[in-house]
Amino acid sequence: MTETTLKEIAAHINGRIIGDENIVINTVSPLDTAGQGSISFLANIKYNKYMKTTEASAVLANKELETSAEAIVLCDDPYYSFCRIVELMYGHRQHHKPGISPNASIADTSQIGDDCCVYDYAVIAENVKIGSGCMIYPGVYIGEGTVMGDNCIAYPNSVIFEDCVIGNKVIIQANATIGQDGFGFATHEGVHHKIPHIKRVILEDDVEIGSNAAIERGSLRDTVIGAGAKIGDSVTIGHGARIGRGCLLVPQVGVAGTAELGQYCVIGGQAAIVGHIKVGDMVMAAGQAAITNDVEAGKQVAGSPAIDAGKARRAYTLIQTLPEMKLEIKRLSKELEELKKAHGSNE
Amino acid sequence: MTETTLKEIAAHINGRIIGDENIVINTVSPLDTAGQGSISFLANIKYNKYMKTTEASAVLANKELETSAEAIVLCDDPYYSFCRIVELMYGHRQHHKPGISPNASIADTSQIGDDCCVYDYAVIAENVKIGSGCMIYPGVYIGEGTVMGDNCIAYPNSVIFEDCVIGNKVIIQANATIGQDGFGFATHEGVHHKIPHIKRVILEDDVEIGSNAAIERGSLRDTVIGAGAKIGDSVTIGHGARIGRGCLLVPQVGVAGTAELGQYCVIGGQAAIVGHIKVGDMVMAAGQAAITNDVEAGKQVAGSPAIDAGKARRAYTLIQTLPEMKLEIKRLSKELEELKKAHGSNE
Amino acid sequence: MTETTLKEIAAHINGRIIGDENIVINTVSPLDTAGQGSISFLANIKYNKYMKTTEASAVLANKELETSAEAIVLCDDPYYSFCRIVELMYGHRQHHKPGISPNASIADTSQIGDDCCVYDYAVIAENVKIGSGCMIYPGVYIGEGTVMGDNCIAYPNSVIFEDCVIGNKVIIQANATIGQDGFGFATHEGVHHKIPHIKRVILEDDVEIGSNAAIERGSLRDTVIGAGAKIGDSVTIGHGARIGRGCLLVPQVGVAGTAELGQYCVIGGQAAIVGHIKVGDMVMAAGQAAITNDVEAGKQVAGSPAIDAGKARRAYTLIQTLPEMKLEIKRLSKELEELKKAHGSNE
Repeated sequence: MTETTLKEIAAHINGRIIGDENIVINTVSPLDTAGQGSISFLANIKYNKYMKTTEASAVLANKELETSAEAIVLCDDPYYSFCRIVELMYGHRQHHKPGISPNASIADTSQIGDDCCVYDYAVIAENVKIGSGCMIYPGVYIGEGTVMGDNCIAYPNSVIFEDCVIGNKVIIQANATIGQDGFGFATHEGVHHKIPHIKRVILEDDVEIGSNAAIERGSLRDTVIGAGAKIGDSVTIGHGARIGRGCLLVPQVGVAGTAELGQYCVIGGQAAIVGHIKVGDMVMAAGQAAITNDVEAGKQVAGSPAIDAGKARRAYTLIQTLPEMKLEIKRLSKELEELKKAHGSNE
Repeated sequence: MTETTLKEIAAHINGRIIGDENIVINTVSPLDTAGQGSISFLANIKYNKYMKTTEASAVLANKELETSAEAIVLCDDPYYSFCRIVELMYGHRQHHKPGISPNASIADTSQIGDDCCVYDYAVIAENVKIGSGCMIYPGVYIGEGTVMGDNCIAYPNSVIFEDCVIGNKVIIQANATIGQDGFGFATHEGVHHKIPHIKRVILEDDVEIGSNAAIERGSLRDTVIGAGAKIGDSVTIGHGARIGRGCLLVPQVGVAGTAELGQYCVIGGQAAIVGHIKVGDMVMAAGQAAITNDVEAGKQVAGSPAIDAGKARRAYTLIQTLPEMKLEIKRLSKELEELKKAHGSNE
Repeated sequence: MTETTLKEIAAHINGRIIGDENIVINTVSPLDTAGQGSISFLANIKYNKYMKTTEASAVLANKELETSAEAIVLCDDPYYSFCRIVELMYGHRQHHKPGISPNASIADTSQIGDDCCVYDYAVIAENVKIGSGCMIYPGVYIGEGTVMGDNCIAYPNSVIFEDCVIGNKVIIQANATIGQDGFGFATHEGVHHKIPHIKRVILEDDVEIGSNAAIERGSLRDTVIGAGAKIGDSVTIGHGARIGRGCLLVPQVGVAGTAELGQYCVIGGQAAIVGHIKVGDMVMAAGQAAITNDVEAGKQVAGSPAIDAGKARRAYTLIQTLPEMKLEIKRLSKELEELKKAHGSNE
């Protein structure tokens, strides 16, 4: 943690201070729990209510607002600016760097670039190529022939199978599995025959794979996670699926085999995407949605099976009124019957 | 396994025997599959039907009931009493205790208490403090600066990141991940920038974390699992979430970042809790529920989105009648139209 | 990869060639992305459309169809035949076979069969028995007294607890957990007391367990996965559950404790099966289904809670029409009211 001034902070993010530039900042906090010396941010209108009560010394915001904070720092994208301030003051995880451990198992035929660390009990199989600046944490397994770019991190006990292709600056969280055989069987006379999975997993640059996630290798075509995509904890991705660049898959999402997601999709927690369908660019799916058909680019969907999100919001809220609807229909039917009788007797 | 008598068993749980106290008991079983020499229990009214056919020698129950068993042992809480009898006769897992393995990697700056075992290929990083009586199984990784209390168990290949705080008698099941970075990114001009996760995971006393569960560390506030809470297999808990003491989260539950659960909540399998909401004490959520808003203490909820559980039970059962409802509405509309015409022609 | 001719391929699967038997085949591909030298297959009518445009040199099909491919190979079960051709041309994963690593930790009291490999940093505890031809990958843990048959594979960092029984040709994918304690607690006066889990997990012959799956050991009866069943990635199976032979559980399925599935059930992704119920043979459940009651053999179910699949398909599609239904009911009610008034005034 570093103590700094609002002036330095504003300079770092190219922000404009409304208030005293000499305020001392020594920590970062959310609006509601911030105290003296904190810098905070307003990125979500939902938290507007805290602006007048926050005890933060300064707040990042994209417009001038009434606040109990001593100062506002104006900037276009307060959340991103806040992220950059956290980086400035705290930085990212510092890796302990002992170099190549004598207690790691590294095949003679593998190549490891400069400034890498391979920690205790990691295993690097034959013909693996690892770029420079990579951190291979304890218990990691990297299978034969896999190629990894520069500045990647494989956290403890993550497993990468053979012949995978990992780009630059890829992060693989602890206990994630990359490149295992997919769930592919040809059932014949009551026996599920395993289909050889002869293709790979490709993780492009800047991908992050969450803890305990499982990314299957392809059987007939590669499984690909596009550049900059972020995959949450315990997500499963089936063989041959394609996840476009910049997609965000929140924890526990399941993508079935050979599904295709365009660029910059955002898929909510526990949502499912069935196999062999295409989801266009920038599609957003609510949590627990089940996408069972192709979805056009830019659409927002929700529900199981997934439909237009606006429609789903209105419709799913009404499920709870089904008992009343049923009673009302019954009442109408009865009254109509009576009316018909009365009308008949009228004629 | 120990052979014992009903007398000894009744004494252990402070129960009252109706029948022969000298019956020999040599195993524990469910009512329906029990045989001669078994003690069983009746805790769920659903299993009442087995009371008259069970071949168990004795049954724990909280009242006198007709039974084919030779004896009943009366006690207030038969399931808890049964649990204590299983403990008496079988005990919990006996750990093989070789002490500190020479094949473990333990930083010089770390401290390990008395009577701990650190098994082969476990890795304990710099400045870790571990209390007494802890079992650190093979392949476990404990990151720099993490503090663990007494009598904890970390099962094989579980991973605990740096600076976490683990209480006493905490159990971390195999392949669980504690303290990885959360799913937090600031998206700016098409790039998802990783937010440094500068806070910790705190697991209070008597917490158990299931296999392959993933508990993210906090970005701006600690992720906390309260004392005595039990977290099932493959549960994911987001950064900064707070789980109250005594909560039960069944396998595959997902809790998003900064959600707050009160004490003694019971969350059914595959249920989801979205971020930034508050769930009161003793809330019960059905399996696959999606809690999308604050829930008052003591409420029972179900459905996606979650509503009152009673309402949900009635409403979700009616979904299957939607085709008939639609037809009925159509019929009513048509008949009404005809009636209106007839009525009009009448005038 | 092997270059071969259509003649050899047809002979291998006992197929009949319509076209030139001397066509050279050097790879396998799906219909839509196949090129010159590829063999492909038509198993799903959905892909019929590609038959006339495919650039594959040959296609496996179960009847004569118009195609742009140079040849068709007729066979009864094209997908299975294709699987056998992939095996012929590529084979399954070749394991690097260094024998027993000096960097593995193997208890003196354990027995390991012929032609096994135990890779670096695997741990085999006391009194384990392993058959012949098994591959125990790096970081695997096998607990005390577990018995494993012949020709099994335990992939990296998978964990098998004590006293489990593993059949022949069982595959356990990376980071899977077998035999951990179940989610079983007796709550008494606000404390969740852990129930000793004194039973085992039994994986019968030819079972495959997916990556990051978690199979709990039994508390009072064994958890059993029947012969030939395939369990997907991140599936959780509760204590004492029974999965019949030949079942397919797609990734992220959750089966609660003491549930029973018959033979050859197919359970879709993210579906849930609650505890203490029986699901008959050959039941099929759609993705995200929640099976909350017994299901008869041969039934297809969908929905949450699960109902007959046909009914569910019709009903769930209508959820989106709820707002219109509500309006329509309101309209009918109003019109009926008016008609009643008019009718009344008529009398």
